[in-house]
Amino acid sequence: MADECLFCKISAGEIPSEEVYSDENYYAFRDVNPAAPTHILVIPRQHISRVTDASETDRSLMGGLLLAANEVARREGLVEKGLRYVINTNDDGGQTVYHIHLHILGGRPMTWPPG
Amino acid sequence: MADECLFCKISAGEIPSEEVYSDENYYAFRDVNPAAPTHILVIPRQHISRVTDASETDRSLMGGLLLAANEVARREGLVEKGLRYVINTNDDGGQTVYHIHLHILGGRPMTWPPG
Repeated sequence: MADECLFCKISAGEIPSEEVYSDENYYAFRDVNPAAPTHILVIPRQHISRVTDASETDRSLMGGLLLAANEVARREGLVEKGLRYVINTNDDGGQTVYHIHLHILGGRPMTWPPG
Repeated sequence: MADECLFCKISAGEIPSEEVYSDENYYAFRDVNPAAPTHILVIPRQHISRVTDASETDRSLMGGLLLAANEVARREGLVEKGLRYVINTNDDGGQTVYHIHLHILGGRPMTWPPG
């Protein structure tokens, strides 16, 4: 855990969030500024600043991030109609919190380009 | 390989594409309709229709998809300024080819919402 990381604190329950999913390695909660009718963030509990910082030793953790997102998508009933996963890195990507987070967006047709 | 899958054929070299990265399990190529100055698709060579179809047995393959994307992002020099990863599922997500593909978008500031 990184002491000053917002998402580490959310994962630890030190800052409240609207929980959607939780297990030993992942935590999911609703985005406070939703960009779609359903907008959820899925994070690994382990602090890694950027997805691009993940390396071979994180392969299982990164695969599990997508599988946890899939589980959330199923629970939210998003899969049949469809949904979008987004992961931002650094300024051009629009990353605002430096703890890996996967955005799940659904509940409306997502447009193209994706931002 | 799925007989009628466009991306299986691209992965097999049966349909030409502008290759960016290739290894035993993944293939990356430029999107023919780029939505950003750099727009690359990364696919697993194994045919899986949707990311939401991936299950526990695909954990390593899915983790490797993100790691392959990271390698592509590094080679393209996108990491420092930033980039966005996008994976679409079904109609609301805007999925057009039913073989898992991760979009890498960079070379400009990506906006919000992401579509």
